[in-house]
This record gives sequence, structure tokens and C-alpha cells, in this order.
Amino acid sequence: MLSSHVIEKIRSIVSTENLLTDDESKICYSYDGTPLFSQLPEAIVFPESDEHISQIMHLANENSFSVVPRGAGTGLSGGSIPVENSIVMVMTKWNNILEIDRANLTALVQPGVVTSTLQAEVEKYGLFYPPDPGSMNVCTIGGNVAENAGGLRGLKYGVTKNYVLGVEMILPDGQLLKTGGKNIKDVAGYNLRDFVVGSEGTLGIFTKVLLKLIPKPTETITILALFDTLHDSGAAVSDIIASLITPSMIEFLDNTTINCVEDYAKIGLPRNAEALLLLEVDGRGSSVREDAETIEKILKKNNASQVRLASNEAEALKLKTARRSAFSALARKRPTTILEDATVPRSELPVMIEKISLAAKKYDVFFGNFGHAGDGNLHPTCLTDERDEQEITRAHRAFEFVFNEAIKLGGTITGEHGTGLGKKQFLESVAGIPGIEFMKKIKQSIDPNNVLNPGKIFSMSPRCEGSLPRKVHHEH
Amino acid sequence: MLSSHVIEKIRSIVSTENLLTDDESKICYSYDGTPLFSQLPEAIVFPESDEHISQIMHLANENSFSVVPRGAGTGLSGGSIPVENSIVMVMTKWNNILEIDRANLTALVQPGVVTSTLQAEVEKYGLFYPPDPGSMNVCTIGGNVAENAGGLRGLKYGVTKNYVLGVEMILPDGQLLKTGGKNIKDVAGYNLRDFVVGSEGTLGIFTKVLLKLIPKPTETITILALFDTLHDSGAAVSDIIASLITPSMIEFLDNTTINCVEDYAKIGLPRNAEALLLLEVDGRGSSVREDAETIEKILKKNNASQVRLASNEAEALKLKTARRSAFSALARKRPTTILEDATVPRSELPVMIEKISLAAKKYDVFFGNFGHAGDGNLHPTCLTDERDEQEITRAHRAFEFVFNEAIKLGGTITGEHGTGLGKKQFLESVAGIPGIEFMKKIKQSIDPNNVLNPGKIFSMSPRCEGSLPRKVHHEH
Repeated sequence: MLSSHVIEKIRSIVSTENLLTDDESKICYSYDGTPLFSQLPEAIVFPESDEHISQIMHLANENSFSVVPRGAGTGLSGGSIPVENSIVMVMTKWNNILEIDRANLTALVQPGVVTSTLQAEVEKYGLFYPPDPGSMNVCTIGGNVAENAGGLRGLKYGVTKNYVLGVEMILPDGQLLKTGGKNIKDVAGYNLRDFVVGSEGTLGIFTKVLLKLIPKPTETITILALFDTLHDSGAAVSDIIASLITPSMIEFLDNTTINCVEDYAKIGLPRNAEALLLLEVDGRGSSVREDAETIEKILKKNNASQVRLASNEAEALKLKTARRSAFSALARKRPTTILEDATVPRSELPVMIEKISLAAKKYDVFFGNFGHAGDGNLHPTCLTDERDEQEITRAHRAFEFVFNEAIKLGGTITGEHGTGLGKKQFLESVAGIPGIEFMKKIKQSIDPNNVLNPGKIFSMSPRCEGSLPRKVHHEH
Repeated sequence: MLSSHVIEKIRSIVSTENLLTDDESKICYSYDGTPLFSQLPEAIVFPESDEHISQIMHLANENSFSVVPRGAGTGLSGGSIPVENSIVMVMTKWNNILEIDRANLTALVQPGVVTSTLQAEVEKYGLFYPPDPGSMNVCTIGGNVAENAGGLRGLKYGVTKNYVLGVEMILPDGQLLKTGGKNIKDVAGYNLRDFVVGSEGTLGIFTKVLLKLIPKPTETITILALFDTLHDSGAAVSDIIASLITPSMIEFLDNTTINCVEDYAKIGLPRNAEALLLLEVDGRGSSVREDAETIEKILKKNNASQVRLASNEAEALKLKTARRSAFSALARKRPTTILEDATVPRSELPVMIEKISLAAKKYDVFFGNFGHAGDGNLHPTCLTDERDEQEITRAHRAFEFVFNEAIKLGGTITGEHGTGLGKKQFLESVAGIPGIEFMKKIKQSIDPNNVLNPGKIFSMSPRCEGSLPRKVHHEH
């Protein structure tokens, strides 16, 4: 527990109005978007300057408490869950867009800017910030960078890391690190910029992010396709990739998800379809329509029972909004929703879809399945109830099966959510012992007292390794 | 000096036919493409397996000698120059393309595959490997990855790091690290894969590289534009970027380079033009021609004295080959050619072009200037004579001026060649002390005995810091 002496020191840094220590606030900041994990912090701070953050990091090293940085808390791997003897550092008030540079196509933002706010702002200038995680109307750029967030447009446009040109961050020892800049190419020294993207708040606290923008595509066509079998939908995706067209989006929904979305959004999706693909092609000029026509042919060749091109922007938006609501729609069904992001090489998608169905049957749990089919990135989602211990154990076993099958297919345990607390027990099977040792050596060299977001990704102390089933995490 | 005992141990690992210790060979491997640096190695080895490399790394740690990995040696920052008491490990015999996966659009290659060989092979399948460094007909993928090589198509397609999906590498302690894979998205743990790209052979020796391929563009239009002033050419580049068109190439040549290229290639370039831009737009369908027409208008608006669209593929190839010959064409003029790669935010290009002209005047040296204008990545090239010590000192001062001006404009000391030996004295001014400390901590944690390519990027021991003018490097 933090001594009142240390709490008072924190107060003297950030002042009373930026410090919360009441029980209600501690409960509010004890969890994030990840089910089944929670831990009360000792305090919650809202720093107002680099200097505040730096001083708190010094204090943490001197007084052996942990600092857990956090944005909107929409993460799905437990990256912003407090640990024992920690304070939560909330960055949501750092929400200014500092510059949009139209000559260099960049945006300089504070980490608390909401992703969709930035998107709307840059689109006013004909520019485009493509990364669009499911939570883009709530989540913040700092969290996106910390977790290297993906989204629906990853297939053509990549993920957050492809758009981070520079960061400023406070290191665990309180120093300010500036890395990257407006140069399109820069190979001076090790690539620290790309390395800190996806480091899940364990190596530094972002205070500024410089993002790359691109010209907004002028043409967009949205296509809906329905299938009677999962296999046909998977084969259609493989054929589209092999056709050398790169759609901006190929989203997949299984029958369970279709029905939940229809209950929720009521947009007339056919409840008996086994699979739905939502595709988007975009770009400049007439090639977009040509690509859409080629895709239509491939979908039909793969036995799509229905293929529909959105007739206008309103209809396209309705379809995409329905897809974006999949998580919320599924979450209404039962008290606890565990959404994962097993990812496989794209050619293995049809096999992986079958393995996920098999996992649900084998362990007698209820799975919806949807995701970014064009990236091989699926979201098997278990609808369950955390009060039923036996069912939760079966759910864990089912996900263990899913991750192992993904790895066997050359896949990975997480495509876009991060390792956090939720999946660190599986990291060794995908990163290998030399890989984890490499990571730990870096963490140890940059944060020798393990004060910044400890226990995320991997545990520095062996006693915390390999907990299954998941439980509240204790480390420091 | 390596004892004969250690040499015999190396021989017992790789066998006699894979070990060179004669003086002629040592001289051949004492330098790379970087002028003014050389150092004799103690031996040259050609490992044949992961196991060979691993055993040699063990031996290096036990016997305190250094290992300097090397591909074709075309690097321009001294990344593969031997250091004192080192052996050179040559990877050029590892030249097999192991797999081209048409379903996942990937190529698995050994590090010694020549870049243009890979390109030709994948183009047979309608696929495309965009990174095209100037030396692409000679250089190898391993070196491209180690230096994060750029090229002419970086503006639209990015650089080597954008195409590395996975690597296998032997770490300094002899362990095999596998990182990355065929997944388009993967956020399991720290992003080691992207981090080792551009680490200049200081963190591991690549044994396999998995590369991302993309569909080959179906339409390509090449445009040549001539200008009477440097300023107009720079303004044209800025206007094209601001028009939200993304050409695949915007290459710049100044009058000196135009004349050297014309002497060399004799393709009818007008010798009195102050600046030449060579542009390429590519893509799918009719938008390519529309973009070319827009670019033509922008060029004319910026006072281009002549704008010519290549009338056929042969003419386009001739123009691009002329541009690719710029380095060789300049190098014929005087005994020593020092080619650098100062890079600035694209909006600062016109200013930087002027600063480079100013540097040549101010320090009374002969500069040609060309480069990747669309990336803000210029190649100021000093034509000099290393036997004239005074002139070489002036050349160093001129480059120091150029780098400092680039940094003042928010630029960097190296866009695509790496830091190596050549530019480590300038690294602090762009990476900052916290940045260099971060890098050194990582190097120290992964290679505690500093046996793998020591002294590149930064010096671990202070006695080697800050040598100016450049000289043969002694470390370890």
C-alpha cells in the first residue's frame, strides 16, 4: 500500500484537483475493456505536463510503486489494468490536435485525442487517417499507439504502426525521449520509434504523437455477400487475395453474429445465412468500379447466395455501422463477453474458421465469430457468465485450443489487441524462449526497477508466469 | 590479433574451404562501398549453416574477437567495414529463394539473394517487391534488411522495413531468434521484427528473411521534366505532394549530375538544364493517366522548360536507367566519391537544395546533387580525391554543414544508408542523449561482450566517440 506520505508527494506534484483517492474512483479505474480482470489502484492521477509525469516516475523509482498509464480504457488485453501497489495515470485530458501539416501530410496530436475526432478533422482537408479500431469513437491515439491497434481497413492500409512518424515519451527514469519526425525516411540509429509502438505502456508514457496522413480516397464501393456455408465464404476471401486486388475491407460475420447484429441494428440481414462478407474497395478513378466488378464475380463463383453493391453512401454506412456494432450486439446476449483476436496467414482462414466452430462444440461454450477476414484476423467471441466458474474454465480451455490451432497454422495469439495480461501465458508458444528473453532484457535495461506497467506482456518475476485460468494479476 | 589456436578452431567449425586467411583476401574484405574507411580483418569465413554461425558466436564471446557480418558490401555508411581483431562473416553464398507463397503474397529468402534477382522472380507471378536501392543489381536482401535500404520507389511504396514480415537470426550469444511470420497483423509481445530491421548487423546475423509482396501495378507512366532554376523544380515537387497524388517516383538531378549522366549514358539530356525531375506514376486502370495529366499541368505551372511523357516502355527504361547510373556517372569524374543521404521533411526540399549548393561554395568543394526528391531524401555527392588531405578536410566540413542544416530543418543525417561508422559522430544531434542511451542499453543487454559488429551506429566505449574527420575505426 502507498503511504500517505507518498500520496501527499504526488499531490504536491499534480495538485489536489488532479488526484483521486476515493474508493468510488478506485473502483472506476480498477478495470478496462477486458473481462475477468480487475485490481484496485492506490490512486488515480491526471498529469498536466511532461514535468508532472517525469516527477511521478522519479517518485515511483524512489518509493517502489508502479505507474499504469491509461487512455480511454477500451483495450481488450488488460494492458491498462492496475497492478498491486500502483497508481493509474490517465491521459484523456491531453486531447489537443496540435498541428495538421498539409505540406508534409502529418498530424501532431496529444495522446488523449479520440481516434474518430482526429479522422473527422483531417478529412476536412481531403486527408485520411486510416486506422479504425472497433472502439474508434471512444478510444484514444495514445492507447492505439501503445497497443498498435488495428481495425477494419488494415488489409489495404495497415495498422497504427504504419502511421506513427514520431513520438515523445517520458521514460521510466523520467527522461524525455523524442524519436522520429516528419522525415518519410530516417535510418539514424536503432528504430526506437517503431519499437515503442505496441510496447503496451511498459517502456514509456507518450506525451506527443506525430502521425502520417494520406490522401483520402475519392471513390468507395461497399459490397455485401451472403453464403450458405462457412467454407464458401473462406474460399471467396482466399480467391480475392489471390486475384491481386487489394480491397480496403473484407469483414466476416458468422450466423450467430449476423443474428445478434440483426436483433440489435434491425437492418434486414437474412437470419439464415451461415456467413456474411462485407467488402469495401476504394481508390481513385474508374479502377475502383472495375475491381468491384471482379470481386462480384469471384463472390458468385464461390457460391454466394446473394451479392449486393450498396446503392448509395447511406446504405454503405448502414452496413458498415452494423459490422462495427458486432461486439456490442454480441455483448447483449449474456453477462460476460470474451473477445479474442487469433490471427492466421490468410490462406489458412477457412481452416481456422472451422477450428473455432470445433472449439465451441468441443468445450460446450457459445461462440460468435467475426473479424477481419482479409487479414486472417478473426474475433472468436465467447458469450458466457463469469459467475459460472465451470463455464468460464471451459471457455478458457476453448480459447487455449483456438490459440494452439492458430499457432499450428503459422498464426499468432493476437493480431491487434496486444498481449497485456490476457495472453502472456501464451506468448512463449509464439515468440519462443529466445524471443521472450530478448524482450525481457530490453525491459530490464530501460526500466530496471520495473515500475512502469509491470507484469504486462510478460512477468519479470517467475512466480507470476503461466496463470491459467485467468485471474486478477498480482505483480510488482 | 587472433591466435592461430582460435583460427584453427574456426577452421574446425566451417572447414578449410570456407575460411580465408591470406593477405590478398584480407585486403579484399577490408572495405565496403563507403569511401575513406578500411581495416584488415583477421580472417574471412563463409558459414554454411545456422550451427556454424552459432558456434562462431560462442567462440567470439569466449575468445574476445569481433564478428562483422557482410553481404555484397555495397553499403555507404561503413556498416560492414571490419574492426580491429575481427573476422568478416560473408553471407553471399546463402542465395536461395526458398519459397514464393502466392496465396499469402510472401517470399522466404536466404539473406544472400540479390535484390533484383528476387524482383525478377516474383514478377513472373504478377507480384512485386518494391524496394529498389541504387545497387539492387548487386546488393543482397540481408544487407537491405540490416540497413533498412530505401530506393527510388520509396515515395509510394516505402522502404525495406515495410516489406519484412519475419526474420530468423543468430543472436550474439549464438541462440536462434525467430520473429514475425506470414500473419499480416501480429502484436504478440514487443515488435522485435521491426526493431532488428536497420540494426546494421549489431544485434544478430540474419539467416532467413520472410518478405511481403504486393500485386504488380498494371499501368506505369514515366515523365521527364526540365527546369531552368533549382527553385522551380523544388516548388514543383511540393505542389505535387500537396495535390494529394502519390507518384511512385520523383527523382531529382542537378546540372552537375545531368552532365555526368549524359557523358556516361549519352541519352540526349540537355546539358544546360539546371534541374531535372524524373517522375513515375503507377497503379491500376485509367486513374494512372489522369494522375499523369495532373502532374504534367503542375510541372508546367512551375515553369518546367520541357515536360515529356515516355512514349513507350523502352524510353521509360532508358530514362530510369540513366537516373540509376547517377552515382557511377559522378564517380568517374574524380578519384574519390563521397555520397551522402541527408533527408528533410518534404516541404523543406527547396531550402535544402539551396543549402547544399551553399555548402559546396562555402567550403570550396565540388558537389553533384541528386536524389529522391519526393521523400525529401537528397544525395549530395562530393567528387574529391582522398590523397589531398586539405580538400578531404574541406569536404568533411561541407558535409557537417549539410547535416547541421538538415537537422535545423527537422531533417535527419541519413534517410536510407544507415549510421554505420560514417555518421555516428552526428547521431547525438538527431537522436538526442536519451535516444542514444536507450540504444546502447539495448545493445549492452543483447551483446554484453560487444562482439557483434562493434562500433557501428555508436561506440560503447567513450574513447572512440566523435572522431572527425573520419578515419579508420578502431574499437574493441
